[in-house]
Amino acid sequence: MAKIYKAALIIIGNEILSGRTQDQNLKYFASKMVESGIEVTEVRIVPDVEEVIVEAVRDLKDKVDYLFTTGGIGPTHDDITSMSVAKALDVPLVKNSQAYQMLEEHYGKNRFTPARQKMAKTPQGAKLIPNPVSVAPGFISKNVYVMAGVPEVMRAMVDYIVRTLKGGDVVLSKTIPCRFPESIIAYDLANIQDKFQEVSIGSYPHFSDGAFGVSIVLRSSNEQMLIRASMEVDLMVSSFESAAINDSSLEFATYDADKLV
Amino acid sequence: MAKIYKAALIIIGNEILSGRTQDQNLKYFASKMVESGIEVTEVRIVPDVEEVIVEAVRDLKDKVDYLFTTGGIGPTHDDITSMSVAKALDVPLVKNSQAYQMLEEHYGKNRFTPARQKMAKTPQGAKLIPNPVSVAPGFISKNVYVMAGVPEVMRAMVDYIVRTLKGGDVVLSKTIPCRFPESIIAYDLANIQDKFQEVSIGSYPHFSDGAFGVSIVLRSSNEQMLIRASMEVDLMVSSFESAAINDSSLEFATYDADKLV
Repeated sequence: MAKIYKAALIIIGNEILSGRTQDQNLKYFASKMVESGIEVTEVRIVPDVEEVIVEAVRDLKDKVDYLFTTGGIGPTHDDITSMSVAKALDVPLVKNSQAYQMLEEHYGKNRFTPARQKMAKTPQGAKLIPNPVSVAPGFISKNVYVMAGVPEVMRAMVDYIVRTLKGGDVVLSKTIPCRFPESIIAYDLANIQDKFQEVSIGSYPHFSDGAFGVSIVLRSSNEQMLIRASMEVDLMVSSFESAAINDSSLEFATYDADKLV
Repeated sequence: MAKIYKAALIIIGNEILSGRTQDQNLKYFASKMVESGIEVTEVRIVPDVEEVIVEAVRDLKDKVDYLFTTGGIGPTHDDITSMSVAKALDVPLVKNSQAYQMLEEHYGKNRFTPARQKMAKTPQGAKLIPNPVSVAPGFISKNVYVMAGVPEVMRAMVDYIVRTLKGGDVVLSKTIPCRFPESIIAYDLANIQDKFQEVSIGSYPHFSDGAFGVSIVLRSSNEQMLIRASMEVDLMVSSFESAAINDSSLEFATYDADKLV
C-alpha cells in the first residue's frame, strides 16, 4: 500500500482564540495539502504562550511528515514563534546570516533596528521560506515549516513550500447533494460505506430555509472505486427522490425510507 | 487573584481538515466564552477517527474547566463523537431515556429507526443540551459539553450553555488601528507592554492595498489599567503620525521612529 503523507498545522495567535479574528488560513492551507497528496491529520490553535507552543510542536512533530505553523514571526514582543520552535526542537536560536542580509538590504543599515533584526533569527541550520510580500522570511527547521500569519504572506509561503514537498496519491473527491435529512439516508449510506472500504464517505448536514439537507462527500485515491461508490450514492438519492415524488412531505419519504432499507 | 476560567474546543470533522468547508463555529463560540469571562486556551480540529478524538478529549479535559466538542453527533456512520467521548471519559455509552423519548415523540414510533435511535445514546449520567432547531440533543458528561456541528444548531447550544457556566472577570478589550507597519512600533509597544503587566497587548498586522497596517489589541479585566495603557498606545500612534506628517514616506517615519526610541 502506498505511503500516506501526513501534515499538521499549528495556528498561533490569541486573536483567533478570542473570537476577534476569523481564521482565513486553514482552508487555503488544507486545500493545497490535499492537492499535493498530503493528508491534514490535525490542526491546533494555540495562544502566544511559549510553553503551549513548545508542547504543541513537540507533540505533533513526530506524528506527521510535515508540521506547519502560522503566525508570530513578526518584530513585536508577542511574536515568539521562532524561539518557541527552536526550544521545542532543542536547536539554538541564532542570527540567520541570509535572513539578516536580506532584511538589512531591504530596510537599509540605519533603519535595521533591533526589532527588525529579531526577524532574522531562526533555529540553527534552518532553511528560509521566501516572503515575496514583505521580505521577512519564514523558515524550515527539521520537519517544521514556520510561516507568517498574515493571509497574503501565508498563501505565498504555502505556494512555495508545496512545490518542495513529497506527497502520496492525490485523494479525489466527489460531492453529491441530497435534500433529505441525514437520518433518512443513514442506513443506506452506511451499507455503501461498508461495501467500499477504499472510499471514505462523509455526510455533512446543513440547515437552510428551515430544512436540513446533506452534502455527501466521497473521497478516495482509487478513482475507479470512487466512481463506483458515487454511482451507488447517486442511485440511493434517486430512490428517495422517487419515493417522495408522490408525496411532498419529507416525513412520507422518511417512512418509505424505512421500508426501503 | 481571581480565578481564571478556561475552556477548550475540539472541532470534529474531516470536512474542515480537507479544506472543503470553512469553519463557522469557532469565532461565535470564542466570542461567547469571552463575554462570559471564560478564556479559550486551545482549539483542536481533528478527523472523524475514534482514537484521535479519544486522545484529544483525554488530553484536554483536565487542563480546562470546560471542554467543548462540535460535530459528529448525527445519525450517520461517520458520527462517532458520542461513543468516543464516552470512551475517553471511561463511562459506558447508554440509551438516554429522556433523549429517546424526545426523539421518538418527534419522529413517531414507526419512523424512529435505528439510525435515529443512535442519536439518543449518551455517556451514562449525561445531562442533555436542548436543540431547538432539530430536536436531537447535545449532552454534558463530566466537564465535557458535546454540541452539534451544524452552525445554526451549535449557536443555539452555545447560547443555552453559556447561561449555565460560571466564569471569571470579563476581559475587556480595546482595538487601536495603526497605519504603520509592526517593525516601526515594535520597540515602543514592548515598552508599554512592560509597563502594564495586567494588560495583554497584541499586535495584528494586516496587508491591504500594498501596505501593512496593524491592529493593536489591548485586553484586561482591569478597566482602569486598560484605559491607561490604551492612552499610552494612542499617544504612541499619534507621535508616529506627527513624525510622518512632514514626509509622506513611511520610510521617513521609520527612520524617525528609530530616533524616537
